[in-house]
Amino acid sequence: MFQRRGIMLILSSPSGAGKTSISRAILRQDANIQLSVSVTTRPKRANEVDGVDYHFKTVEEFNQMRDAGMLLEWAEVHGNFYATPKAQIDELLDAGKDVLFDIDYQGALQLYETCQEDIVGIFVLPPSIKELKHRLERRADDNEDVINRRLKTARQELREWNKYDYVIVNNDLEKSCALVTEIINAARIARRRQVNLPQFVSDLQDELESFLK
Amino acid sequence: MFQRRGIMLILSSPSGAGKTSISRAILRQDANIQLSVSVTTRPKRANEVDGVDYHFKTVEEFNQMRDAGMLLEWAEVHGNFYATPKAQIDELLDAGKDVLFDIDYQGALQLYETCQEDIVGIFVLPPSIKELKHRLERRADDNEDVINRRLKTARQELREWNKYDYVIVNNDLEKSCALVTEIINAARIARRRQVNLPQFVSDLQDELESFLK
Repeated sequence: MFQRRGIMLILSSPSGAGKTSISRAILRQDANIQLSVSVTTRPKRANEVDGVDYHFKTVEEFNQMRDAGMLLEWAEVHGNFYATPKAQIDELLDAGKDVLFDIDYQGALQLYETCQEDIVGIFVLPPSIKELKHRLERRADDNEDVINRRLKTARQELREWNKYDYVIVNNDLEKSCALVTEIINAARIARRRQVNLPQFVSDLQDELESFLK
Repeated sequence: MFQRRGIMLILSSPSGAGKTSISRAILRQDANIQLSVSVTTRPKRANEVDGVDYHFKTVEEFNQMRDAGMLLEWAEVHGNFYATPKAQIDELLDAGKDVLFDIDYQGALQLYETCQEDIVGIFVLPPSIKELKHRLERRADDNEDVINRRLKTARQELREWNKYDYVIVNNDLEKSCALVTEIINAARIARRRQVNLPQFVSDLQDELESFLK
């Protein structure tokens, strides 16, 4: 009913807990949400499109952006840089578009520091580590070493569950998506996102004074 | 899925904006929400039941409760005292029951001061003052003096809209109730209300360590 500011929707989870499946389902069902496109210095792969999968930059360009304060968060992973560009996110939020961030806890915590008021953060937990391991094993492309590395990373990730606004235990993809949808719907009507509300109330107050004269 | 702490759901609005209609609909549709029963020193009316409509107390009893810190908020209205008893609310919230408060902004602001983490506050606005006046005029029992007094009170109430978590413009009762339901559903799964979550994560961490050994 009112113009509103978009949401920064952050989904984080240990690898295999279901973050990416939930993200995909939410993006499919809700046309007002789009995935944040990160900046990266890693080489473009054959099937990737610049500006769609990533904004591909040289290390020099990346450093310039970072030093100019153009990045909301950044991290180095396996020798490559990844970051969220500030200008594009601001533009989307101002236009009332919601932006989904499928990022790890390090990026999420940086975003919470700089953009607290815009964020709705959801941490996705697996029902058990046994189930998490099963899910990782079912991914054909991951060998045992990769699975072990992911489990070791999960150790760090699990420590950060209590930094998020919501925690979902992902037993069932459909139920988890329904919960995320309810969280999004409530967040959209939060007072602080209704940017026209101060004017609306001020008009009501003027109207009231004219009745009370 | 987890044991959770109940919500203190506060609905406030200028008289006639629809707070009471919304409250009634929500209480009817959701068995886990109950209306907070206030303490009052005003005389019991013939159709009222002690402990259901109010907890009726003498002024002396009321003062004792207040001085002993047994009240979450209190106010004097037209020479009578009204208050929210702390013990009963705590008991309900601990048991995972949600409690609805159909109270004015003075009570709401006191509750926000003492119970911030438990509260979800919704301020209900009328679409216009003209419509608000129409609604007040349709109430057969209110004469012009009463209506004017209510409009004057609305002047104070409207100033407090920005203290609440959510603001709803009540154009349509059904739509407003649907919004309130989404707000409640999201609030119920907020991390801070999932009281068993720390134990659940701790168990996951133990399980993970046993896999990584």
